[in-house]
Amino acid sequence: VVGYRSDVASRDRPSAAEGARTIAASTNSGTLATLGAGGEPWASFVTYGLLAGAPVLCVSTLAEHGRNLAADQRASISIVSPSNDPDPQAWARVTLAGVADRPVGDELAAARHAHLSAVPGAAGYLDFADFTLWVLRVSRVRWYGGYGQMDVATDVEYAAAEPDPVAPNAARAVAHLNADHAESLLDMAKNLAGYPDATSATCTGADRYGLALTVDTPRGLAYTRVSYPNPLESPADLRSAATELAERARIGG
Amino acid sequence: VVGYRSDVASRDRPSAAEGARTIAASTNSGTLATLGAGGEPWASFVTYGLLAGAPVLCVSTLAEHGRNLAADQRASISIVSPSNDPDPQAWARVTLAGVADRPVGDELAAARHAHLSAVPGAAGYLDFADFTLWVLRVSRVRWYGGYGQMDVATDVEYAAAEPDPVAPNAARAVAHLNADHAESLLDMAKNLAGYPDATSATCTGADRYGLALTVDTPRGLAYTRVSYPNPLESPADLRSAATELAERARIGG
Repeated sequence: VVGYRSDVASRDRPSAAEGARTIAASTNSGTLATLGAGGEPWASFVTYGLLAGAPVLCVSTLAEHGRNLAADQRASISIVSPSNDPDPQAWARVTLAGVADRPVGDELAAARHAHLSAVPGAAGYLDFADFTLWVLRVSRVRWYGGYGQMDVATDVEYAAAEPDPVAPNAARAVAHLNADHAESLLDMAKNLAGYPDATSATCTGADRYGLALTVDTPRGLAYTRVSYPNPLESPADLRSAATELAERARIGG
Repeated sequence: VVGYRSDVASRDRPSAAEGARTIAASTNSGTLATLGAGGEPWASFVTYGLLAGAPVLCVSTLAEHGRNLAADQRASISIVSPSNDPDPQAWARVTLAGVADRPVGDELAAARHAHLSAVPGAAGYLDFADFTLWVLRVSRVRWYGGYGQMDVATDVEYAAAEPDPVAPNAARAVAHLNADHAESLLDMAKNLAGYPDATSATCTGADRYGLALTVDTPRGLAYTRVSYPNPLESPADLRSAATELAERARIGG
């Protein structure tokens, strides 16, 4: 039985930087923290687009956060990935912290495009005189991927990472595997993940590297992963990769 | 035609303080803004309960926001009401700002109960040595109820207000009115809201005071409200109050 194909990939799961980029790319709203006139912290809802992972904000100088940013450009944004999990502590989230500045020239055009692509409704106010585009230059990243999965990433790691391309299809794939392929998941736990005494297995996540499984055994619960031979490059690859994993697991690894 | 029954209620819509209390009571998670060691703003996901409107947090001193609060108790929390509206700028939200402190004695027991009632999963860690309960004493409130509805509330107004008791049933009532009672909504627009030339009407909100309507007329869109004779006291009252409004509208006000 082969557990992980450590020979073909340097790692078998997303890094903190990749997790952070994936969460940032999963939605278009978050909460900004800025500083009030007395240095007090101010939390406020914002929409954003992304320019190479850097949040692009469009805020009014008539709004409190807009006045705050104009006076002190230090800021951070907390982004929570949309989830149906009833337990909020299980939701994946990230904090991106740094200093905001106003893009100019070509970058202003790119920032404008990035914001409008993510927030089409901003077309109704983006060009009003009181609205300003800001790019948050990310210098610190704190990623939380769910229970027990947390780490920091540097600005360089964050800038170099890319969002997981299969993330848009992951929730549907996980639901489908659990609903219709319990036997295949159990085969994976037994024959690929090293739990020959597994009695059932549930898929809890799917990413470009593989599937996360929670495995029931007579010895207790186990949390493990099974990996594809190579990282996936497109959302459409998820289905065939899962099918191949199931086939490899069925014939015993 | 009688428009609003201004004779029986001092107002016909929720105040900013009521709106803020209602949003705070609508969920159990938000984003906290605290200050890092250099005074920089830090945004982080938190769960909370409520003690007379004051957010009760349970954070670890091993987490960045826990260390931040231990060093500087100034904080604010942004809370967004759950919504199915695809336009994030339409989501109701509030910022509550103030100073956090650690409850003691009877208030500690009440704060513990408030947090656990809202976040049952906290039973798994609340009593760990590194977790601390904090109560955010709210001194400033900024409420945003949706497009064109925004205001501030004082600490006294916020403390004195109560969450709208019909809020838990409001989304379902609005969906039902729009799906099955278009004719009644049009009658309300024509005969109660003062738009005799209305061609259609959509309900966009329901609260203890009445219904918010968007009305199509040959002159353009209008945003208006129709009010119940008296504010409602329980979620179960919403159905009969809407039925009575429809009947009053049908017979011409």
